[in-house]
Amino acid sequence: MIKKSHELKVDVHNEFLGGKGTLTNTHFINKEDAAGKGRLFAKSTLTPGSSIGSHVHNGDFETYYILSGKALVTDNDGKEYILEAGDVMFTPNGQSHSIENCGDVNLEYIAIILYD
Amino acid sequence: MIKKSHELKVDVHNEFLGGKGTLTNTHFINKEDAAGKGRLFAKSTLTPGSSIGSHVHNGDFETYYILSGKALVTDNDGKEYILEAGDVMFTPNGQSHSIENCGDVNLEYIAIILYD
Repeated sequence: MIKKSHELKVDVHNEFLGGKGTLTNTHFINKEDAAGKGRLFAKSTLTPGSSIGSHVHNGDFETYYILSGKALVTDNDGKEYILEAGDVMFTPNGQSHSIENCGDVNLEYIAIILYD
Repeated sequence: MIKKSHELKVDVHNEFLGGKGTLTNTHFINKEDAAGKGRLFAKSTLTPGSSIGSHVHNGDFETYYILSGKALVTDNDGKEYILEAGDVMFTPNGQSHSIENCGDVNLEYIAIILYD
């Protein structure tokens, strides 16, 4: 089955999980089409200065795969890292993370949440 | 956990599944880290003229999400489509598909295979 880009489901969140600005999720697999394997399969976009606040994953785990732009992420141990295109943040079940666009252009990344 | 781009596992396949040229898979989630939910979570790159031959999915289902370049895909019903950045091909369990780079630059897409 083909889905053209304009047919994909898009969600816009403001100050998501205590973050700043605007997060846009473009769902390339809808949760209901994922055979119960996960709950998010999206291209996420954070505008410059926007962020997702720190949050814990319970019962699932998330992967960020950076496509473009510059991310400031905080890992479960509180350490901060700069991620750019091709870099990955993997957050296991029970751990926390946050992400912020610390660059001048949109930050785009693949976000996948699978159930543990 | 952070993985920088140079730390990701990369596979190179020639004439994959009866296709032409070269397919490169960069694994942003390794199969062994996916809690049994799927077997491929990769950025796939096909050089111009390269392809993956037609094949059936049995017991799993695959999604292609085009990042850049131009793809000629064949769906389960034998129909051909041109996909570009932002477009999706969803191939359910039991169905077949193929993909070819019909453009002048590398075709890059996210490929995800989940178990059904």
